[in-house]
Amino acid sequence: MSVTSELRRTVADLHRELTKYELVIWTAGNVSARVPGQDLMVIKPSGVSYDDLGPDAMVVTDLHGKLVEGEYAPSSDTAAHAYVYRHMPEVNGVVHTHSPYATAWAARGEPIPCVLTMIADEFGGEIPVGPFALIGDDSIGKGIVETLRTSRSTAVLMRNHGPFTVGTTPRAAVKSAVMLEDVARTVHFALQLGKAEPIEQHHVDRLYQRYQNVYGQ
Amino acid sequence: MSVTSELRRTVADLHRELTKYELVIWTAGNVSARVPGQDLMVIKPSGVSYDDLGPDAMVVTDLHGKLVEGEYAPSSDTAAHAYVYRHMPEVNGVVHTHSPYATAWAARGEPIPCVLTMIADEFGGEIPVGPFALIGDDSIGKGIVETLRTSRSTAVLMRNHGPFTVGTTPRAAVKSAVMLEDVARTVHFALQLGKAEPIEQHHVDRLYQRYQNVYGQ
Amino acid sequence: MSVTSELRRTVADLHRELTKYELVIWTAGNVSARVPGQDLMVIKPSGVSYDDLGPDAMVVTDLHGKLVEGEYAPSSDTAAHAYVYRHMPEVNGVVHTHSPYATAWAARGEPIPCVLTMIADEFGGEIPVGPFALIGDDSIGKGIVETLRTSRSTAVLMRNHGPFTVGTTPRAAVKSAVMLEDVARTVHFALQLGKAEPIEQHHVDRLYQRYQNVYGQ
Amino acid sequence: MSVTSELRRTVADLHRELTKYELVIWTAGNVSARVPGQDLMVIKPSGVSYDDLGPDAMVVTDLHGKLVEGEYAPSSDTAAHAYVYRHMPEVNGVVHTHSPYATAWAARGEPIPCVLTMIADEFGGEIPVGPFALIGDDSIGKGIVETLRTSRSTAVLMRNHGPFTVGTTPRAAVKSAVMLEDVARTVHFALQLGKAEPIEQHHVDRLYQRYQNVYGQ
Repeated sequence: MSVTSELRRTVADLHRELTKYELVIWTAGNVSARVPGQDLMVIKPSGVSYDDLGPDAMVVTDLHGKLVEGEYAPSSDTAAHAYVYRHMPEVNGVVHTHSPYATAWAARGEPIPCVLTMIADEFGGEIPVGPFALIGDDSIGKGIVETLRTSRSTAVLMRNHGPFTVGTTPRAAVKSAVMLEDVARTVHFALQLGKAEPIEQHHVDRLYQRYQNVYGQ
Repeated sequence: MSVTSELRRTVADLHRELTKYELVIWTAGNVSARVPGQDLMVIKPSGVSYDDLGPDAMVVTDLHGKLVEGEYAPSSDTAAHAYVYRHMPEVNGVVHTHSPYATAWAARGEPIPCVLTMIADEFGGEIPVGPFALIGDDSIGKGIVETLRTSRSTAVLMRNHGPFTVGTTPRAAVKSAVMLEDVARTVHFALQLGKAEPIEQHHVDRLYQRYQNVYGQ
Repeated sequence: MSVTSELRRTVADLHRELTKYELVIWTAGNVSARVPGQDLMVIKPSGVSYDDLGPDAMVVTDLHGKLVEGEYAPSSDTAAHAYVYRHMPEVNGVVHTHSPYATAWAARGEPIPCVLTMIADEFGGEIPVGPFALIGDDSIGKGIVETLRTSRSTAVLMRNHGPFTVGTTPRAAVKSAVMLEDVARTVHFALQLGKAEPIEQHHVDRLYQRYQNVYGQ
Repeated sequence: MSVTSELRRTVADLHRELTKYELVIWTAGNVSARVPGQDLMVIKPSGVSYDDLGPDAMVVTDLHGKLVEGEYAPSSDTAAHAYVYRHMPEVNGVVHTHSPYATAWAARGEPIPCVLTMIADEFGGEIPVGPFALIGDDSIGKGIVETLRTSRSTAVLMRNHGPFTVGTTPRAAVKSAVMLEDVARTVHFALQLGKAEPIEQHHVDRLYQRYQNVYGQ
């Protein structure tokens, strides 16, 4: 199996995590993966139902979003994914959803404060807001990259739009999207009935260092 | 397979999307489809469980709601669907649900403001409220049609009742119902903890034009 | 198959509706059915997981809660069900859940106002609150019966406890429990962001009369 | 089958209850069980997906968290579980989740008031908050034990972190986690729209005594 056909399968499988965790509805969300060592990426086609997203439906584009392989037109968010890969060489996976709680923070343009150990562990501090940007050119990609560069977070809340997450692997980007929605929801619940104290910075730092280095197998 | 028997299957399948996205409970929601080129429509029978809604359970009525084909009495909302088909020739599918977030906006009689790019894309602006109307004559249908005519939206929030959506195809009407509940929920969450700035009109216009013309395959 | 063994199956199947609509967790909710023409009822056993609730697990008691048939001890709510059957001869099914939204209204001791056509249709007006009552004697049953007698509603919100619903058939009682949670949730959402006008009484009356007499097959 | 291999299966099966009731996402939550009569426990491995958690994936550690048996590194929460088993001999099961509603109360550092009969039944009064504690030494375990010793509750809300629950059996600890999230949610809903009167202490006492002694088979 070639690298891209294996990656098509990976990306197809990861879309199922988005539906499993109810981060997306209808066709509104996408995962992409950088093809290792090539200026290419694998991404979801535009407007195709999640039920029909097998490996063969995935498309391959260059890092300017030009279709290289595949029968469908690529996701309408391809330009944003491509911009991220061009400007963040350490990123190998990008995810975009409109998961409801994260998108609610994005609609208010309000970062998610670091009031949970899970946020410190996974995001290393508050989860930042990116600018309002229209689809159609590099504005969204630029907003994502500029925001993530000022933060440890792998997630950014694009204003009036929704979250984008990145990872050193496609699976890590999906994990970030799942964890983001979970903490967006929990902090939403917390603040509905009062206040939550942010965790002190030195504690956040210790939690983040530990989780990034010790957790898992 | 005749046109109506194919359409019975389509309409039966689309009801499964309503349960999948949790837009309906028990028997409280319905999809209909115009029979192309005939003054007929296919619609859900009244008070039949979604588990029992195979193609054969669907009924065919004329565009005044009179039963033409089928073993069951048609949905109690048939008159509203029929009115829409009589007065909006471009509409070929109608959906009615009591999906909880959309119905909450309807209960308050408050339109959903256009604070998300997804609302601009799909609905072209705020999602309007229709009048309070009693079942039993043309009041509901009239309220739907008059409200939708003043708006780009394919969804209307009937006051103290719930949403109706329309589409150029039955599937498009179902998509509208799914997207409606999603944005009704996200904007609900957003406004629970503060304010969300509406997207400027010229941006809404660009997003709507692009999505209606470029998105998908 | 004897009447009671058929009824055991019906009651077992109806418990699956409670889990399907997420009205219950673990073992905390129960359905019962009156045995037609006998002073007996079929009810869920106490503390048995929903996964293990086949027809054989169901128990038969007399209308004072004394075990007549079955291997398990009856539900700890049996006395309340029995009291209802003794005092409301038109009732043939009783359901008790702790469904979250309905129970939240019960915790506040606040009736659910009739702000939705679905509430008018199904409950004929606001859904009333019953008294705080301890388990162990007839207090809960008495509270249910006295509250329902002053209302058209088939559902009562027992204060600090949760809902009980009744029906002319066991399935109707389950439907009432499902619809109750749905409207409890929608009205909750509506009131979180503002006010909702109650439907005028004469409209409520017309909706209720129609739905009770015309809806369904 | 040896005692530990039977317990591995039990613990693996109980993790499925956590996903079934949506108390955990990705890999963020864990169940453990004391090995009867030995200074050992069975616990989830660190960072392994719930889909891959068969009996063989479970690990056995001593009561200081040192790996005794198994192919994976134990959960990063092992030290906290171990501390509980060392200091609470009556406890044979421990569960940790970040279930959203319970964690929201933890983020605010606010105990869940006893406003529902279900809380009186299961927890015997309000559900207490434990201290903020960092992972890495005995702080979390100590916080859990000291808080639970002052309460009848089998659940503690660790500040800015999430809930831990205990039980005389592993299944009882899981039940506590399930019931905790349920009541955390219902009370959250109740307080969003007003106040809920706590149940009087003597009623709480009666309910608790009865439920602990009479309920079930």
